[in-house]
Amino acid sequence: MAVTLDDWRARFERLRANKLFELSVIAIIIFSALLIGAKTYEETSRFHQVLLVLDTAVTVFFLVELLIRMAAEKRPLDFFKKGWNVFDFLIVAASLVPLDDSELVLLARLLRIFRVLRLVSMVPELRILMVALFKSIPRMGYVVLLMFIIFYIYGALGSFLFVDVDPGLWGNISLAMLTLFQVATFESWATAVLYPAMEHYPYAWIYFLTFIFLNAFVFLNMMIGIVLDVMQKESVAIELESGEGEAAELHGLRKDVRELRDQLNRMEGLLQRRD
Amino acid sequence: MAVTLDDWRARFERLRANKLFELSVIAIIIFSALLIGAKTYEETSRFHQVLLVLDTAVTVFFLVELLIRMAAEKRPLDFFKKGWNVFDFLIVAASLVPLDDSELVLLARLLRIFRVLRLVSMVPELRILMVALFKSIPRMGYVVLLMFIIFYIYGALGSFLFVDVDPGLWGNISLAMLTLFQVATFESWATAVLYPAMEHYPYAWIYFLTFIFLNAFVFLNMMIGIVLDVMQKESVAIELESGEGEAAELHGLRKDVRELRDQLNRMEGLLQRRD
Amino acid sequence: MAVTLDDWRARFERLRANKLFELSVIAIIIFSALLIGAKTYEETSRFHQVLLVLDTAVTVFFLVELLIRMAAEKRPLDFFKKGWNVFDFLIVAASLVPLDDSELVLLARLLRIFRVLRLVSMVPELRILMVALFKSIPRMGYVVLLMFIIFYIYGALGSFLFVDVDPGLWGNISLAMLTLFQVATFESWATAVLYPAMEHYPYAWIYFLTFIFLNAFVFLNMMIGIVLDVMQKESVAIELESGEGEAAELHGLRKDVRELRDQLNRMEGLLQRRD
Amino acid sequence: MAVTLDDWRARFERLRANKLFELSVIAIIIFSALLIGAKTYEETSRFHQVLLVLDTAVTVFFLVELLIRMAAEKRPLDFFKKGWNVFDFLIVAASLVPLDDSELVLLARLLRIFRVLRLVSMVPELRILMVALFKSIPRMGYVVLLMFIIFYIYGALGSFLFVDVDPGLWGNISLAMLTLFQVATFESWATAVLYPAMEHYPYAWIYFLTFIFLNAFVFLNMMIGIVLDVMQKESVAIELESGEGEAAELHGLRKDVRELRDQLNRMEGLLQRRD
Repeated sequence: MAVTLDDWRARFERLRANKLFELSVIAIIIFSALLIGAKTYEETSRFHQVLLVLDTAVTVFFLVELLIRMAAEKRPLDFFKKGWNVFDFLIVAASLVPLDDSELVLLARLLRIFRVLRLVSMVPELRILMVALFKSIPRMGYVVLLMFIIFYIYGALGSFLFVDVDPGLWGNISLAMLTLFQVATFESWATAVLYPAMEHYPYAWIYFLTFIFLNAFVFLNMMIGIVLDVMQKESVAIELESGEGEAAELHGLRKDVRELRDQLNRMEGLLQRRD
Repeated sequence: MAVTLDDWRARFERLRANKLFELSVIAIIIFSALLIGAKTYEETSRFHQVLLVLDTAVTVFFLVELLIRMAAEKRPLDFFKKGWNVFDFLIVAASLVPLDDSELVLLARLLRIFRVLRLVSMVPELRILMVALFKSIPRMGYVVLLMFIIFYIYGALGSFLFVDVDPGLWGNISLAMLTLFQVATFESWATAVLYPAMEHYPYAWIYFLTFIFLNAFVFLNMMIGIVLDVMQKESVAIELESGEGEAAELHGLRKDVRELRDQLNRMEGLLQRRD
Repeated sequence: MAVTLDDWRARFERLRANKLFELSVIAIIIFSALLIGAKTYEETSRFHQVLLVLDTAVTVFFLVELLIRMAAEKRPLDFFKKGWNVFDFLIVAASLVPLDDSELVLLARLLRIFRVLRLVSMVPELRILMVALFKSIPRMGYVVLLMFIIFYIYGALGSFLFVDVDPGLWGNISLAMLTLFQVATFESWATAVLYPAMEHYPYAWIYFLTFIFLNAFVFLNMMIGIVLDVMQKESVAIELESGEGEAAELHGLRKDVRELRDQLNRMEGLLQRRD
Repeated sequence: MAVTLDDWRARFERLRANKLFELSVIAIIIFSALLIGAKTYEETSRFHQVLLVLDTAVTVFFLVELLIRMAAEKRPLDFFKKGWNVFDFLIVAASLVPLDDSELVLLARLLRIFRVLRLVSMVPELRILMVALFKSIPRMGYVVLLMFIIFYIYGALGSFLFVDVDPGLWGNISLAMLTLFQVATFESWATAVLYPAMEHYPYAWIYFLTFIFLNAFVFLNMMIGIVLDVMQKESVAIELESGEGEAAELHGLRKDVRELRDQLNRMEGLLQRRD
């Protein structure tokens, strides 16, 4: 029985590895996701009907594959020890919930939206991308912390200095920090934020320019830091790999040469004994 | 006969490799392209006449060169097996179509516009750039897929939450996704999108800030990922190249040392036999 | 006594290395910083009271730890030889100043704002980030100098050419440089700066496009230059490290082989002497 | 005599290498440059007088140093063979022209503006930056060419499609290309360009989104390409350098081992002859 299950699993894996099958499933998921959006147009067509059937087929495919993967485990609960399995299970479960009652329309809609995450279940490259994203969270976290300090200090100063210029922009620290975020994205920062402030305080440009430079400076350094950090790890790994072969070769060579010395010692002994 | 053709081909190749000739052709193509634009000014000058003659000369040059390259192939149809040859052929063919009838004005204009692509035929560096672009399409494809998921989920949430704020921006999922694209490019995102939304929902900034951070985060990771990916391949290639020389040297050295051992074994045998 | 102090120091260091403790302190500092902002809302809650106590606890923790670190030095004044110690001392001192008098409200508020810098005292990663920032100042300084030259020349030209278009934007060199900074951040550069100028001078786009390209060009080159500069130093360091092991191995091997030769020379001498 | 000149040259070089002297000259040049801007304020102060004297002193310093460098050449005209010498000469000459007549005010002002380029003469790091900029021009040139093709084709299409939407933005190809440049910088691209176009053609977003993606795509690839290109050259250089030492060591080792073999051959011959 276990053999048959593993057989089926292998078949499903072969099917998934098929690029054409992958592209079809991606297309079906995207089009049915867009259709949910189009529903707000209150439009139902023949194309819609076909897509609905295909979308259900994809969900059934996911369900069957998931069940086989679960059954193939020796203890079914081991299945849930891997994060991605739990993720796949939740996505499939959410796709199956039959919520078309008028009462729970909102929940049903939300669940339907998150069905687009089946793409992540389907495409291995997206999983790799997401793992990379999760791994870079702590590193990014510290940069966000540094940014927070800069925004907080400038926000506090700004809410003292410019509160009379425009209370809607500088009324309190949180408003000022939001305004500074707008400045950091360069959205109307000069026409709507800088020039009104300069009418009251002609030297306000010092505040804004130092803020923009500081931000750009931290951002640039952060990017360079991250690239170098990841690069260094990569190149150390490459060095080790390529170095190991050579190091082993060198080590073996040295052992050979020492064996030669031992042999020569014996031979010299023989020669000297004879004299 | 074939020799003469190959001779001519070589002559054309030498001419193309000439930097001055290349720059002249680039200048002619660009100026005649701009002139098509200037025609909308309904202006005809002496300069125009000269440029028209030069532009025709460039097209004739391309045509003759193409015919020689075709004739130099043993089987003329082999010529069309290379993608770039097909591209050059289409560009030259489109440059030759004599569409000045008043009926097909639009088609004639479109064809004239695409004659600017003769630049790609002419400049080898542009071909290299375009090959690099084509190669990076699959890698970019997956990032676009991930972006689509983020835009779709935020777009769906946005079309639920903010539909009452501004139906023109949030009326349905596709409108909401377009609005989010505007937010992602930072165009009037605070003044025209965020602040109106915050008037209804004071916590709307959470929606927009998480969206912007998520986007920046994915974008940054993607750029770093791509740089590292390409770099790793490069450095492995370099390692292999530089490593091969040393590895071969080390391997040869070890063989030498083993031959020494064999010789010493024979000598030790001679010495011991005599005792 | 000194042992006990070192014991206490070690205990504090262990406590600081605890991730959970670090995260709690970060959370307390951030929330109490945000609360200072919220005070402008004139709101006092139970949550506020708790946070105030926790925040005081953090300050006391910093104070005690600082005193222990000071006492553990053989000469207390040596403590102030390290820049970070001075920084920590100033932050703790500023946190302790009891300024709640109505006269010094502004100073008290400023001091409270800078208490967010306790985060830098707490999180080692932020210190590393800040050291990296300080190190890159000279390198950045030269780029800012180059940018200044470009902005100055364009600003001077702009204040000659466009002063009649809009004296508010181009009235003098400093105004023109500020306007160019706005152009460099792409904020309303076309609608509010370029198009009005083009109404007077149809070729004004040449001025703006060359400026934007020059800026982008310098910025791009600078970024590439910095990345390469830092990278080169890194990779030289890695090469040296990984190279040293192999070089030592090779050197040792060569010494072994030379000892073999000496031994063989002696043996050959023995053999020849006998003939 | 020549020795004295070389002595003086060395003295000037020592003076220039002094960081404090460099910083003072940079400060003087920047402040006097800003003062020319401030003159438009019609303000003359004591500080101004001092700065004028210092600025003249800097020009005299440059002049004397230049004359010494010229005199130290064996043939004075050899001095002008180096590009930087010509640059320095022109800057000093322009600084000396005494144009304060009311007739030539404009030329005098322009000359005064370009005196800020004395900074490039003064700071060696700026020269390095500018050499790097010049070297990257051809590489950038091809990318600009590719961008031109994209802008031209989209501009031509846009001037056909959207001419009725807003003739001021899409009236002819050159206007359309300028509008597309505005779109590429994301300035009011959605509110002022996309939405008006979508009112006439609901699918206009396809035109703009493909344009933006294509641009971002080319830009990203170009940046990655440039970084990799420069990096590869660097790492090959590093590999060669670090490799050479090891390769020489390995080569020497192999020669040693071959000498051992020759010696053993001789010894084996001696042993066999005796049997």
